Amino acid sequence: MGGVRDGAALTRRGLLVGIGAAGGAGAMYAAMGALGLAPDEQDKSFTPPRPGDFSLRGRASAKVVILGGGVAGLTAAYELGKAGYDCTVLEARSRAGGRNLTLRRGDRLTELNGPAQDVRFGEGVYFNAGPGRIAPWMVTLDYCRELGVPIETFVNNNAGAYVHTNGTTVRARTARADMYGYVAELLAKATNIGALNRTLTKDDRERLLEFLRRFGDLGPRYAYEGSPRRGFARYPALDGGVPTEGPGSLHEVLAAATGRAITSDFGHEQATPMFQPVGGMDAIVTRLAAAVGADRIRTGVRVTGITDRADGVEVTWNGGSLRADYCIATLPPHLLAKIPHNLGPQVTTALRTPVPVSTGKIGLEYGRRWWELDDRIYGGVTETDLDITHIWYPSHDYHAERGVLVGYYNTDEHAELYGALTPEDRRRRAITQGRKIHGDTYGKGLLSAVSIAWERQEHIQGGWVRWPSFDSSFTLLQRPAGRVYFAGDWLTRLIAWQAGAMESARDVVTRLHQRVLQSS
Amino acid sequence: MGGVRDGAALTRRGLLVGIGAAGGAGAMYAAMGALGLAPDEQDKSFTPPRPGDFSLRGRASAKVVILGGGVAGLTAAYELGKAGYDCTVLEARSRAGGRNLTLRRGDRLTELNGPAQDVRFGEGVYFNAGPGRIAPWMVTLDYCRELGVPIETFVNNNAGAYVHTNGTTVRARTARADMYGYVAELLAKATNIGALNRTLTKDDRERLLEFLRRFGDLGPRYAYEGSPRRGFARYPALDGGVPTEGPGSLHEVLAAATGRAITSDFGHEQATPMFQPVGGMDAIVTRLAAAVGADRIRTGVRVTGITDRADGVEVTWNGGSLRADYCIATLPPHLLAKIPHNLGPQVTTALRTPVPVSTGKIGLEYGRRWWELDDRIYGGVTETDLDITHIWYPSHDYHAERGVLVGYYNTDEHAELYGALTPEDRRRRAITQGRKIHGDTYGKGLLSAVSIAWERQEHIQGGWVRWPSFDSSFTLLQRPAGRVYFAGDWLTRLIAWQAGAMESARDVVTRLHQRVLQSS
Repeated sequence: MGGVRDGAALTRRGLLVGIGAAGGAGAMYAAMGALGLAPDEQDKSFTPPRPGDFSLRGRASAKVVILGGGVAGLTAAYELGKAGYDCTVLEARSRAGGRNLTLRRGDRLTELNGPAQDVRFGEGVYFNAGPGRIAPWMVTLDYCRELGVPIETFVNNNAGAYVHTNGTTVRARTARADMYGYVAELLAKATNIGALNRTLTKDDRERLLEFLRRFGDLGPRYAYEGSPRRGFARYPALDGGVPTEGPGSLHEVLAAATGRAITSDFGHEQATPMFQPVGGMDAIVTRLAAAVGADRIRTGVRVTGITDRADGVEVTWNGGSLRADYCIATLPPHLLAKIPHNLGPQVTTALRTPVPVSTGKIGLEYGRRWWELDDRIYGGVTETDLDITHIWYPSHDYHAERGVLVGYYNTDEHAELYGALTPEDRRRRAITQGRKIHGDTYGKGLLSAVSIAWERQEHIQGGWVRWPSFDSSFTLLQRPAGRVYFAGDWLTRLIAWQAGAMESARDVVTRLHQRVLQSS
Repeated sequence: MGGVRDGAALTRRGLLVGIGAAGGAGAMYAAMGALGLAPDEQDKSFTPPRPGDFSLRGRASAKVVILGGGVAGLTAAYELGKAGYDCTVLEARSRAGGRNLTLRRGDRLTELNGPAQDVRFGEGVYFNAGPGRIAPWMVTLDYCRELGVPIETFVNNNAGAYVHTNGTTVRARTARADMYGYVAELLAKATNIGALNRTLTKDDRERLLEFLRRFGDLGPRYAYEGSPRRGFARYPALDGGVPTEGPGSLHEVLAAATGRAITSDFGHEQATPMFQPVGGMDAIVTRLAAAVGADRIRTGVRVTGITDRADGVEVTWNGGSLRADYCIATLPPHLLAKIPHNLGPQVTTALRTPVPVSTGKIGLEYGRRWWELDDRIYGGVTETDLDITHIWYPSHDYHAERGVLVGYYNTDEHAELYGALTPEDRRRRAITQGRKIHGDTYGKGLLSAVSIAWERQEHIQGGWVRWPSFDSSFTLLQRPAGRVYFAGDWLTRLIAWQAGAMESARDVVTRLHQRVLQSS
């Protein structure tokens, strides 16, 4: 989008031709949306700043300092840059991206009070240590389209993956068929004995029974007696195959407590399908950073002071300072709260309100994709009631030689338990737990591992935050304090999603731009 | 696999090195499985014929004529070729593949008693006119791995796609949340009034209620009052968003009859995730045919006679004949039944037993992916009670400029209705139906269309077959008639799946090879 940044008054058509040539059709459509030429269902309210806004009104753009080079900070710089704002991003870590972190061979992952890990994956192998999936309704996909980041399906629900609860492992399809089967049988029974006659008309009852037969795969007398949906010990081919053993009794199935596992994709954030960038989540960061311009992103800068003045903002750090017309602060609130400022005690109190959440992940690289070859699991998630919580199977490079499992992805006390271990002990514990599901295979052929404890990542110190309630502290920080704006997923209802960071950045960009256009 | 065909007695290690170099790790693992060096969960019983089988026993391989160059015929030729069998595939159509047919720009699709269609898609755009998806447990994926066909996810279930029933269109997520919500509420009510106390212990009831609250997203008094799972008119971002209107009453939700739609992925054949070859399903045919060898596949050969003799089989056609030691007949049974033979009347009767099923599909190419841009539908299927039955959204090339929807995929009377129309009228009717779901957008920006009526495809004449029952006719044809073997999906429980063709071919190859090794 470099051509848009020069502030010249382009025609709409000229702009589109230029963007189409540089960014492909996706970028062109996105630009068409911005110019009001194509519909944009997702967020009808956002119009990026454009060079013409200044040239047409005879105003100049402004200088903006952005604290934090994560997704919120980069998105803000990218959108402001479209209209020629002079943005500088200050990032405390050695590279931009924040929690959008993809680890590859040669990377070195340090942590607070812990040893560094050298990533030793094979060539082309990666591990998304932070966000790993995108829901199709999220604005994140719009940025992928606009920035030319190719996407592919992330398998978030796999009937062939396992459910491990109360010491027992079954396929997800089996757990689901059994719960649905018995639920259908029970409701059919209650309906047929007339227990619901006050609630249901005769038509309702007939329709309900028809649904229940289908939903539970019930037999002719509305009994659940198992179903091919449960799976097979030997799949049908020349004959009908050999069904998976079972089902257990109603009592046994209820006692297995698979409910959380088999409803894990019911929410609007986790529903099938989901998506991931091809080659690693950090493709979003790479493209955003390239569009912003490497010269505008300064890494290794640890801010030590924010001073709001009548005519600008001054940001200081050890060894330097910078003055700008406006500031957008995108650091995690609990870290931002520690930086001296003159924005008032209410802001400090508000920044201290959300509670950081511990989160951890481990990437386990195997030399053989035994989960595909032996278990026929292609992507997806095994849900467990163990402290590893989940096992993720890779949704890419199917049939390749190597592959990386996510051996745990947990939060809160489970994350803290693993985080307190050495990387070696985290790996050992993850393997011990995974063996309960996958048996001895899980311990064999492991080539390398790398684990992250987000609460131990310097300048981040948490996976995300949790607001005790979305109260006045939350709304206070959605508004600027003088010339200082706040942005991040933590200021939205999409906490822990990149979409939250992007939506928040768009909101701040809109407000800031309106202010600049209205100021004298 | 050319190096394996020469019949030389290779060492295992030498063979693996050669296959690894030629076919990559996937092929090598597959070969390792074949050599008993790696596990093969899918089908422990199949061991491909190998050159050593002959050289070690001092026997010669045999000459085999294969009728039909579809997936069954190609698989048989491929597997026999591994041990150096001299195979010839006779195919009546102008190209191999059978129902595995991918249409692209420049293709010309003819049909019986109908006009030819020239495919005018854009460069790189394709339409799988036949099979379009693969379940992960199917042997088809093993062939993709062995042959080096890259695969990607096929989205078979999409919470964001629509359900259109009784004239009403809702998102799949909404239909599902409402049915599950009310089912949970009703069963909780029946449980709480004691209607199921004879069936459920106190523990059972508590566990059931806990599950129902989660399953239906019920409120504190076990009432269903809607749920964020239903979706949003405006998704959450800075605030909680605006929920989708509703839900309707229990009576309305039952009357909507969404049951078939929201349970469509419950079976073991349709469960999430599913897969497709990158770039078109015919990649499987292309690789199989290349491995078999173009010189061994003769197209345009319409067989007119099959004669089984004591010392071989003679196959004749207009203009030629061929003698071989064995024959594998993989034509559709209803067409095979019409070819004169000396295999006896029982064989003819058996071949006439399965009933061909009409099936049709239309590919609609649009110049703008409005389903992604406007509806946020990335892949998946809209289920309808219209005669189009389904609309499929493409699971590949997301965010590209163009894309092909499957505008109908139907069977039986619906397929025959469309099949009897001209291609132009099929398109028109498909658009009329689709507009009931997608509105005016559906009729705009259509670049081209191509439709197939499988019952009108010469030398195929059906989408698949339906056996009245898997009776003695079915098992009769699973055995050879003299030196003539039968193979195809129609001889398995995986009818209409390529996996059926492959499993049947493997079975015949195993039986034929054992016979050759045992014969003097």
